[in-house]
Amino acid sequence: MRFFSDNAATAHPKVLEAIAQANRVDTAYDGDALSARLDDAFSDIFETRVRAFWVTTGTAANCLALAALCPPYGGILCHRDAHIEVDEAGAPAFFTAGAKLILLDGPGAKIAPAIVDAACDGIRKDVHQVQPAAVSITNATEYGCVYRAGEVAVLGELARSRGLSLHMDGARFANALVTTGDSPADVTWRAGVDALSFGFVKNGGLNAEALILFDSSIADEIAIRRKRAGHLLSKGRFLAAQILAMLEDGLWLANARAANAAAQALAVAAPQRLVYPVEANEVFLQVSADENARLRAQGFDFYDWGPGEIRLVTSWDQESDDVALLAAAISAL
Amino acid sequence: MRFFSDNAATAHPKVLEAIAQANRVDTAYDGDALSARLDDAFSDIFETRVRAFWVTTGTAANCLALAALCPPYGGILCHRDAHIEVDEAGAPAFFTAGAKLILLDGPGAKIAPAIVDAACDGIRKDVHQVQPAAVSITNATEYGCVYRAGEVAVLGELARSRGLSLHMDGARFANALVTTGDSPADVTWRAGVDALSFGFVKNGGLNAEALILFDSSIADEIAIRRKRAGHLLSKGRFLAAQILAMLEDGLWLANARAANAAAQALAVAAPQRLVYPVEANEVFLQVSADENARLRAQGFDFYDWGPGEIRLVTSWDQESDDVALLAAAISAL
Amino acid sequence: MRFFSDNAATAHPKVLEAIAQANRVDTAYDGDALSARLDDAFSDIFETRVRAFWVTTGTAANCLALAALCPPYGGILCHRDAHIEVDEAGAPAFFTAGAKLILLDGPGAKIAPAIVDAACDGIRKDVHQVQPAAVSITNATEYGCVYRAGEVAVLGELARSRGLSLHMDGARFANALVTTGDSPADVTWRAGVDALSFGFVKNGGLNAEALILFDSSIADEIAIRRKRAGHLLSKGRFLAAQILAMLEDGLWLANARAANAAAQALAVAAPQRLVYPVEANEVFLQVSADENARLRAQGFDFYDWGPGEIRLVTSWDQESDDVALLAAAISAL
Amino acid sequence: MRFFSDNAATAHPKVLEAIAQANRVDTAYDGDALSARLDDAFSDIFETRVRAFWVTTGTAANCLALAALCPPYGGILCHRDAHIEVDEAGAPAFFTAGAKLILLDGPGAKIAPAIVDAACDGIRKDVHQVQPAAVSITNATEYGCVYRAGEVAVLGELARSRGLSLHMDGARFANALVTTGDSPADVTWRAGVDALSFGFVKNGGLNAEALILFDSSIADEIAIRRKRAGHLLSKGRFLAAQILAMLEDGLWLANARAANAAAQALAVAAPQRLVYPVEANEVFLQVSADENARLRAQGFDFYDWGPGEIRLVTSWDQESDDVALLAAAISAL
Repeated sequence: MRFFSDNAATAHPKVLEAIAQANRVDTAYDGDALSARLDDAFSDIFETRVRAFWVTTGTAANCLALAALCPPYGGILCHRDAHIEVDEAGAPAFFTAGAKLILLDGPGAKIAPAIVDAACDGIRKDVHQVQPAAVSITNATEYGCVYRAGEVAVLGELARSRGLSLHMDGARFANALVTTGDSPADVTWRAGVDALSFGFVKNGGLNAEALILFDSSIADEIAIRRKRAGHLLSKGRFLAAQILAMLEDGLWLANARAANAAAQALAVAAPQRLVYPVEANEVFLQVSADENARLRAQGFDFYDWGPGEIRLVTSWDQESDDVALLAAAISAL
Repeated sequence: MRFFSDNAATAHPKVLEAIAQANRVDTAYDGDALSARLDDAFSDIFETRVRAFWVTTGTAANCLALAALCPPYGGILCHRDAHIEVDEAGAPAFFTAGAKLILLDGPGAKIAPAIVDAACDGIRKDVHQVQPAAVSITNATEYGCVYRAGEVAVLGELARSRGLSLHMDGARFANALVTTGDSPADVTWRAGVDALSFGFVKNGGLNAEALILFDSSIADEIAIRRKRAGHLLSKGRFLAAQILAMLEDGLWLANARAANAAAQALAVAAPQRLVYPVEANEVFLQVSADENARLRAQGFDFYDWGPGEIRLVTSWDQESDDVALLAAAISAL
Repeated sequence: MRFFSDNAATAHPKVLEAIAQANRVDTAYDGDALSARLDDAFSDIFETRVRAFWVTTGTAANCLALAALCPPYGGILCHRDAHIEVDEAGAPAFFTAGAKLILLDGPGAKIAPAIVDAACDGIRKDVHQVQPAAVSITNATEYGCVYRAGEVAVLGELARSRGLSLHMDGARFANALVTTGDSPADVTWRAGVDALSFGFVKNGGLNAEALILFDSSIADEIAIRRKRAGHLLSKGRFLAAQILAMLEDGLWLANARAANAAAQALAVAAPQRLVYPVEANEVFLQVSADENARLRAQGFDFYDWGPGEIRLVTSWDQESDDVALLAAAISAL
Repeated sequence: MRFFSDNAATAHPKVLEAIAQANRVDTAYDGDALSARLDDAFSDIFETRVRAFWVTTGTAANCLALAALCPPYGGILCHRDAHIEVDEAGAPAFFTAGAKLILLDGPGAKIAPAIVDAACDGIRKDVHQVQPAAVSITNATEYGCVYRAGEVAVLGELARSRGLSLHMDGARFANALVTTGDSPADVTWRAGVDALSFGFVKNGGLNAEALILFDSSIADEIAIRRKRAGHLLSKGRFLAAQILAMLEDGLWLANARAANAAAQALAVAAPQRLVYPVEANEVFLQVSADENARLRAQGFDFYDWGPGEIRLVTSWDQESDDVALLAAAISAL
């Protein structure tokens, strides 16, 4: 039973259907009819005009955005455990031509405004030290914690006051939203976010993610950088189709609700073992090596997150029986 | 009727089927069962052990290879009309961190050995001039011309003697092979090719291309660079599935034969108008502005290739009726 | 007798004196009293407020400017024989993170407006092709030809109308000015130049060049990029001292006049052999291999510029006897 | 009285003399007679064949070395307070095209082998995390602490066993050597160092540093990268002359001894205030804001190193009276 990663989950049948239906001749690259609908579709969701770009990975979405928001000689403030720092093979440095990730601490991989302030204040304002140009936050975070709209707004105000851009890595954006109940607009552009990596692949998509720009002044640059990075697919309609299918009738939110509910079912089974509050679809538990082995012996697959800690990730397609079995197994430890 | 681009064509139904069948839980990234079969599958085709990497675009395949074959301070000899020079938005410079494309002339976008020699000889051997480190050829070329195995072998020998790596952009590799009858092995590694961008998307694929390494010493680096460029998809099995479907029972060759046959049907309709010999699935014709307009008025869509010249590209799924109509229309001009 | 390169010449005694006088304790980097005088000194010369940065090489000056004027994904229009293309080891690609030099033809390594126009018009306005962002011209050119203020102004107007920045490589700026009689202002910012690499080393300096910004909005970025490229010397006062010495009492102009006069003395010795008009301190002559050998046998050292052509470069410190001897030797061929 | 920075010190008169004597016509760039002597001169000092390159800054020396020792996608282990991390404006990322500095802790800015081991062990061996490729240590460190030959040897052995290159930033190499008494060979190549940034400017030089390669296989690449970074000066003989003057009769060691002695004189004045052991020419003292003000009121200039801490740097040319006055002032606090 797989609790290893939402990257390992299946694609939603409607996504596959949409791909099949997109299998007709159309203009190449992003000139097709489906791709042309993306701006409108996301503008509806965000209640403002946005520019939307399909890409195939969160790394591409994150790093294209950062490259437009931070010059090669600038710094990007992010959490020490952020995906862009830990799990993207240095892609931010590649896409930005050498910008520096300035690492911040904070519980649950969340960044507190005071930490951002302190980091900025600690940098001499001269040419010898890399000056920050952007902040990147992850929502939900790598530890399944969420930022509420109000929290983002404080960071957004702080960023603006210091002349910093604000990027949100939303690989699990849907999972955050269904927890907080915030509107997509409130937690992003109304809170000062300039660009959002809007994840679909962990949430039922096949291989399409979206980069949403609230600051349309960088749209042309993003279009060029996407091509230059080899991320402008020639049959882009198959990506657009996936995204539109996910957006239709709120499938993206329904999927996230399913995944989050599964996580909650696990969380309540062992509240005393939780390393972080469970606010999305990830559950981090303290388990001994022996307990770990016992869970594995029962057929549960998950990620060892350092000694004495495991990560369980639930997906939109998680079998409820599996969840119940694992919840029981955890309780029984 | 579309003769605009093979990028606009449909995906083959077997490719879609394969995607649907790959929609099961499996390990993320390229750790899945399908991705694990790629090395073997391509090794069979090339009659030697190769390493194969899926990516989603030819630009990614080309530029990952070039980044591994050429240092940032090196030069890559290629034709002036090569895709990497003309149509990839400077991606080679991005992926290589600044390597220089050294542009060569030659009919049909083919590079002759003497031109490579002359270019190398014209570069002073000092630190002030960029020294060549690699050669990149396209087969079939941007003008639909092909390199025979013997021609590649001469270039390969030349490259080796000068310490240069050899890359082949095979966006239309299948189209070249079915024309020449050369074996995949003969026109690549036996002829000195170090890395091949093996195209599928123009030939019935959906969004999967392959990068084939005959020099396995760069495989680890390619794996890292693919991730770093945001090209390691988390559900890679959907790419592997496409490629395996294309390879099964020689679908890739059958598709190319169909596309090439359509091109031949057009070529014979106007032999006196051909700008280049038609050796793959592209037909470049001399037509006046008036003739151009007449063709368009009959519903044919194609690319204007400079004044007085048009490009017709045929695809694996080209309707034979459309081809016959266009052939007749051309004859009737 | 050396006619090989003005890079091989001596430093002017006043430059050495200035270095010796700068040998006192002062603030490090460019915080010293001498460096602080540069903006004013160059502002006087250019009759407008400019920002001036010392660097140690023309390559650094050129490429720092280009990095600020052109994004990584942009193109820089320059002559095919420009120093930045031919003799800087790909430094523009390094500093800009991959911008593309778009090469233009033109006699004497000068760029004509029509050629710039044609090049721009030949680039499709899409994301597949690299879009130009800047023009770089060299004055005096690599072949010792000069742009008059009016010529630059036409290029400047053209650049502005197309949204391109304009950079001037003035490694031999002084040599150009003393020929044309143009004012420094007229041939630069009044003609639309945004940044000038103002050369001193070929003209009597030791190891200090200046980068002059007429567009002060990029000054902060240039300061950072200079540091980041390892070009912010810790005892910068020794560079500032050189530059101030060169500027004092017009030494830079006097030196250029001396070098140009020597070139003219050679030019008049063989008007029929001149490959280009002699407008600065370089003389390109057609000489046979046999004639070449005879000159060398008499002790003259120069650069073979391809078959049948030689380059003579005169310097500020050229011995008039040497010049007379060479002029006579050329006449006698 | 200046205790602010050794970068603010004067150049040694013999260095100026050497520059004056180098003011003759010679081959440009590094083809001159003086530059040609560097390899031999440093080979003598290091008791093995080395390759030596002049550059004008420590940043250039450090980052050229790192670019050759670490691929763009690799990591460089260094201390959190290393100059390359803190004070070079991100130059390592620029020169390496995006390599990552992996930051280590340790007292006195020294790296302990166990810390290196732990850092390496903490990195998953997959393509998602940046894999280390090099270690960079500073000797003497940013806090004036030194590595003995035996300590470097342990790090060197560790680096070798993990496949990492080893770079030493020796901006204050001489100051370290005169303290430990180690031979240049013992503390570098015999201990596993591949490349050394050999500092002169803080030690009486004017604007010449040296990059020493013990691994000559990267020499050609370094030569190219130096040019490409704009660091190949056209009158390089003036840099070579400085270095040769510093090496002659051990001037570099004598200067370092003078600077270190001055630091010792200050250290003994306030042993209880020392933040770090004084092993080179830097003295870090705990002083209150009030004490700080009293010292400044007496005319002493120094660097505030965070609250309650000051940095005093002594130079080769430090006036002994000034040192005595400052020592007395500190004692009197």
